[in-house]
Amino acid sequence: MSFREKIAAAASGGSGLCIGLDPVLEKMPEKLQSAEKPLLSFNMEVIEATAEYAAAYKPNLAFYEAYGWQGWQQLEETIKAIPEDKIVIADGKRGDIGNTSRAYSRAVFERLGSDALTVSPFLGSDSIQPFIENPQNGIFLLAVTSNPGGKEIQNLVADGIPVYQHVIEIARRINDYRNIGLVVGATRAESWSNLLEIAIDMPLLIPGIGAQGGDIATLKNALKGYPAPALINASRSIIYASSGEDYKIAMRQAAAELHDKITD
Amino acid sequence: MSFREKIAAAASGGSGLCIGLDPVLEKMPEKLQSAEKPLLSFNMEVIEATAEYAAAYKPNLAFYEAYGWQGWQQLEETIKAIPEDKIVIADGKRGDIGNTSRAYSRAVFERLGSDALTVSPFLGSDSIQPFIENPQNGIFLLAVTSNPGGKEIQNLVADGIPVYQHVIEIARRINDYRNIGLVVGATRAESWSNLLEIAIDMPLLIPGIGAQGGDIATLKNALKGYPAPALINASRSIIYASSGEDYKIAMRQAAAELHDKITD
Repeated sequence: MSFREKIAAAASGGSGLCIGLDPVLEKMPEKLQSAEKPLLSFNMEVIEATAEYAAAYKPNLAFYEAYGWQGWQQLEETIKAIPEDKIVIADGKRGDIGNTSRAYSRAVFERLGSDALTVSPFLGSDSIQPFIENPQNGIFLLAVTSNPGGKEIQNLVADGIPVYQHVIEIARRINDYRNIGLVVGATRAESWSNLLEIAIDMPLLIPGIGAQGGDIATLKNALKGYPAPALINASRSIIYASSGEDYKIAMRQAAAELHDKITD
Repeated sequence: MSFREKIAAAASGGSGLCIGLDPVLEKMPEKLQSAEKPLLSFNMEVIEATAEYAAAYKPNLAFYEAYGWQGWQQLEETIKAIPEDKIVIADGKRGDIGNTSRAYSRAVFERLGSDALTVSPFLGSDSIQPFIENPQNGIFLLAVTSNPGGKEIQNLVADGIPVYQHVIEIARRINDYRNIGLVVGATRAESWSNLLEIAIDMPLLIPGIGAQGGDIATLKNALKGYPAPALINASRSIIYASSGEDYKIAMRQAAAELHDKITD
């Protein structure tokens, strides 16, 4: 199945819930903190509790690297534990000169077995190319990020259009296999109408809902009529919904509620 | 010692040689390919052969991630094997929302024990801040990269100045501990005069010499009179100087030659 078909299948109604797997030892339930492989154990609980509602899982690589090689080992095992029908997005915001991007590509697609990777466009098209050479895999290219400082570079206007629009034009130019999606932050949905017009039909990965404060109604309104799948991500608001003994029920409930709001 | 003092000490003459530790199994001498920890064994040979000439070592994280958790394990052990007086630059081009950059910061400075990290500025100042909170560590922020596509975003002109200049202005604004350096590619030294004027006195990390074709004479000319240390990086042209039995002599010789050209 091509990357595009995989996404369409996972987010069958057009929009799908993506759950961020960002394990932090101090934040997880105490009994898991002392497990032999705490990150893996926690993730498996998250997956078990939320799989019914999730179209995609997005492990953020930073939260594994913070635990060194043991973190990477648990990242590899986590990805193996994700059900086949879910999209796996390695959130690494990688991007380097061609030779190096090729090594990242091997790491993420061959070793980890992810379906997609988040990619930073700062080094231009030849830094992106190695990630899209195989139509079975895809990327989500950073266009508009959800953090306060995102605007500092992304919204600079050059040749009459903002930098993020230049990024989208690069994506369109090299999107031979139609396996490029875009990261567009929910917290900046006010500036989206123009953005979605030029994105045309690229799949979207939308962070910024939940702990970061993006509003779901504004978001859904902005997405109305958009012809490609949109994966709406929440991490902390689901996986840390409760640190009490009811944590698994709380995760499941948080996932169910967000899923219903998204697909309503 | 602060990051700034460390760099000044390592590159005592102003310019220093940085050697990229980018191990690729197929490219290393055959007898090392079958070692139990081939990346580590290869790196230890590189370090032994070149330490006399190197001010810094720069492991590029992609080349370890390509071998999964075993790669990360060998990365950790490689960094432990680098002599104390050398600057260790983790080349990861990281950068994410604050919460995530904080996790990368733990990974790179606390777990790996690097002195510096290369950082991508695409997400703006709040994505950079977590990496510079400790004056003992520092970053090299991507300004002008050495690859052909680097210009596509970095040279867009907004408000009368190129994006890379906006990046440098962000760096200047948040550089309270003076632990921000800049990545400026040798292959684009023609556009440097203006760049070095605004960089004022930030340390430089300069890739693009060697396999990427940057010219050392042009580079030295451009750097004349620049008041801060410059680390000039070569990776492939040194560590893969020969794949024959003489590989260690060849590495040493390549490092010696480049060192002499740089410090001449």
